[in-house]
Amino acid sequence: MTATLSELAQKGAAAKAASRQLARLPTTAKNAWLHAVARALEEEQAAVLEANRADCAEARDGGLNEAMLDRLLLTPERLAGMAADVRAVAALPDPVGEVFDMRTLPNGLQIGRKRVPLGVIGTIYESRPNVTVDIATLCVKAGNAVILRGGKEARRSNLALGHLLRAAAAATGVPVDAIQVIESTDRALVGEMLRMRDVIDLMVPRGGAELIRRVYEEATMPVVAGGIGVCHTYVDDSADLAMAVNIVVNAKCRRFSICNALDTLLVARAVAPRFLPMVAAELTARGVELRCDPEAEAILRAAGYAVTPAREDDWGKEFLALIAAVKVVDGLNEAMAHIERYGSGHSEAIVTESYTNAHRFLNEVDAAAVYVNASTQFTDGAQFGLGAEVGISTQKMHARGPLGLRELTSYKWIILGSGQTRP
Amino acid sequence: MTATLSELAQKGAAAKAASRQLARLPTTAKNAWLHAVARALEEEQAAVLEANRADCAEARDGGLNEAMLDRLLLTPERLAGMAADVRAVAALPDPVGEVFDMRTLPNGLQIGRKRVPLGVIGTIYESRPNVTVDIATLCVKAGNAVILRGGKEARRSNLALGHLLRAAAAATGVPVDAIQVIESTDRALVGEMLRMRDVIDLMVPRGGAELIRRVYEEATMPVVAGGIGVCHTYVDDSADLAMAVNIVVNAKCRRFSICNALDTLLVARAVAPRFLPMVAAELTARGVELRCDPEAEAILRAAGYAVTPAREDDWGKEFLALIAAVKVVDGLNEAMAHIERYGSGHSEAIVTESYTNAHRFLNEVDAAAVYVNASTQFTDGAQFGLGAEVGISTQKMHARGPLGLRELTSYKWIILGSGQTRP
Repeated sequence: MTATLSELAQKGAAAKAASRQLARLPTTAKNAWLHAVARALEEEQAAVLEANRADCAEARDGGLNEAMLDRLLLTPERLAGMAADVRAVAALPDPVGEVFDMRTLPNGLQIGRKRVPLGVIGTIYESRPNVTVDIATLCVKAGNAVILRGGKEARRSNLALGHLLRAAAAATGVPVDAIQVIESTDRALVGEMLRMRDVIDLMVPRGGAELIRRVYEEATMPVVAGGIGVCHTYVDDSADLAMAVNIVVNAKCRRFSICNALDTLLVARAVAPRFLPMVAAELTARGVELRCDPEAEAILRAAGYAVTPAREDDWGKEFLALIAAVKVVDGLNEAMAHIERYGSGHSEAIVTESYTNAHRFLNEVDAAAVYVNASTQFTDGAQFGLGAEVGISTQKMHARGPLGLRELTSYKWIILGSGQTRP
Repeated sequence: MTATLSELAQKGAAAKAASRQLARLPTTAKNAWLHAVARALEEEQAAVLEANRADCAEARDGGLNEAMLDRLLLTPERLAGMAADVRAVAALPDPVGEVFDMRTLPNGLQIGRKRVPLGVIGTIYESRPNVTVDIATLCVKAGNAVILRGGKEARRSNLALGHLLRAAAAATGVPVDAIQVIESTDRALVGEMLRMRDVIDLMVPRGGAELIRRVYEEATMPVVAGGIGVCHTYVDDSADLAMAVNIVVNAKCRRFSICNALDTLLVARAVAPRFLPMVAAELTARGVELRCDPEAEAILRAAGYAVTPAREDDWGKEFLALIAAVKVVDGLNEAMAHIERYGSGHSEAIVTESYTNAHRFLNEVDAAAVYVNASTQFTDGAQFGLGAEVGISTQKMHARGPLGLRELTSYKWIILGSGQTRP
């Protein structure tokens, strides 16, 4: 136990000291590191693949299911894909140092804000080893040191990737201690980490609802988390129904296992008899199970579709599967009330040709991303033009929606005087 | 106990429901409320003054010291001053609804960010009743409901002010439940409030270091706090020494009881023998006690000034009094190292004629406000052009420095499509 705690305390202190150097490092040095990391991911795969084979073997013996094993697995192709992602981060503009809102006050003081790194970012995540590289590269590009605490199944893989990241740092002038991989998988360590307010400026948990809840409850430092997306698409009575079918099918089926995928389809009563059979034809052809309220069920059964009755807990559920809940509503007001009650504040869409309803939906729905006539699957840092992201925030503080490089920074006020004193 | 908890739960639920209405309220309605509050503070003072007399009498009987009694006291003139502050908030632009970063993506999606209120803001503060009006008016102008938990000494005054704020709301179409004053002064209630993550979107503690530490430790929701300012001014060897005297005297003496006042003066060795007697003449004439390191002490004693030797705990102390710690340093590097070790990240200044040293100080010092050749007393929402403030944040998340109306908001992404689906 003592040894475990001292690992964290020691690596935390080293990360904090490194963060001060890193904050002042020019973009060229950070980009040189990113390119060195990408090269190593392509050309020095042996140690990482060997560590990953050991992790996978142990996880398989331990009975981890196939989906989890697949998330844990690294292959030469996957490492090459990670290298491409790292080069994409190198190509993004560096947010650090940007001066904005600069102006001259009546007393002649020039005042503005200058973008600075946050300092040290802590992250706790589950078994996907690619997250180690994703988060480390984004944090360091934004000038932050990072303390990485991954899942125990990926322990060897994460250590090998951490070694690769640190070796590339040593070779390119980035402070090696800016990247810290925690070796111990002792669960007590999570609690210790969440109390390290003096070292960690921001905690970014990535994982399931239980992990995120624990981090919110116990963390003494700011937390940015998201992850849970209960996403609705509302088809208004004025919708172009062919467009609505395309949007709903894309929002559900393009990738169903991601947080911006459609969970609940809301349909205005006036168009439900026409629209529901149209969309059910496309969705059921793609294997989507429809869990319907009684009204939608009656319409679809009459049209010859076998559907499941929805249970109360299907509303507000993130399915991450080929399942959609379906409900007929009076119109916009009932749709927005349903979203307010069951939504998770992630991504919500309306399909409509009504100016007034589009305007009201945009103004009144409270979520990180609110869409008119488009698929919620666009909620993503790259799609929004931010580049890569460390996650999608569903909270309102600091940053909302995709967390890109700029969202991993803060600012300081800079004031240039010529001897001004305050009256 | 049960009754106490249900007061908080009930008022929290009412505030949350009101926050949804308030978020959509036009600026005109919020400003009408602010003007009605200002009129009531001028014209309906009797109930507030009577409640305040009772609070003051009880506090005096309880042995509260004179400084605290003065902070608790309301007079007709002080209420009129509060009315003027409320009208100043009415005159500020409403941040809610601003659309920014709007652009069109290659696929034709129009995407931008729209500024929205945070929701419900909770605040815990000590005995100054004017804080009740300050915070409530700023929160509501930014579209947020507010739950106010003031100090027990000001209980009757806060309730009377809360009644005035709510009566003005009823008269102007602002949801009355957007303003909630907690009656109970049970300390257990603070713990309950800090666990109300489902209701309170942001906690803004105002008060001493102990209160703020407790809020950070226990709060399950985001916190923005500041309050502690250990502020340094470094006089570089290239400084214009007459300018430096003016800046140092203003930073210490204009108001010594506020967080942006100078605590420690750092002087480059090359100019210390000339500068220290110059500045000591002005400071001691204003009653400032100088707590000096051995080198500064020797210079000042030789010049005939009676000074106190500094103790280790004078470095990094927020004096809030006519006291300054004084230290001679090698130059810029030692000054910045001292600031990094002892500063609280509030306001730090350099006085210099060196371009390189000014540039380095601005880039390398990590604080909410970093000054060249100006007094740190400018760190203030109104001085920075933000209007009134709920406090000054010394943390890096969400907002840093003065927290004005814009800092009491979040944003949502809005996406306007014409049928786009993601490939």
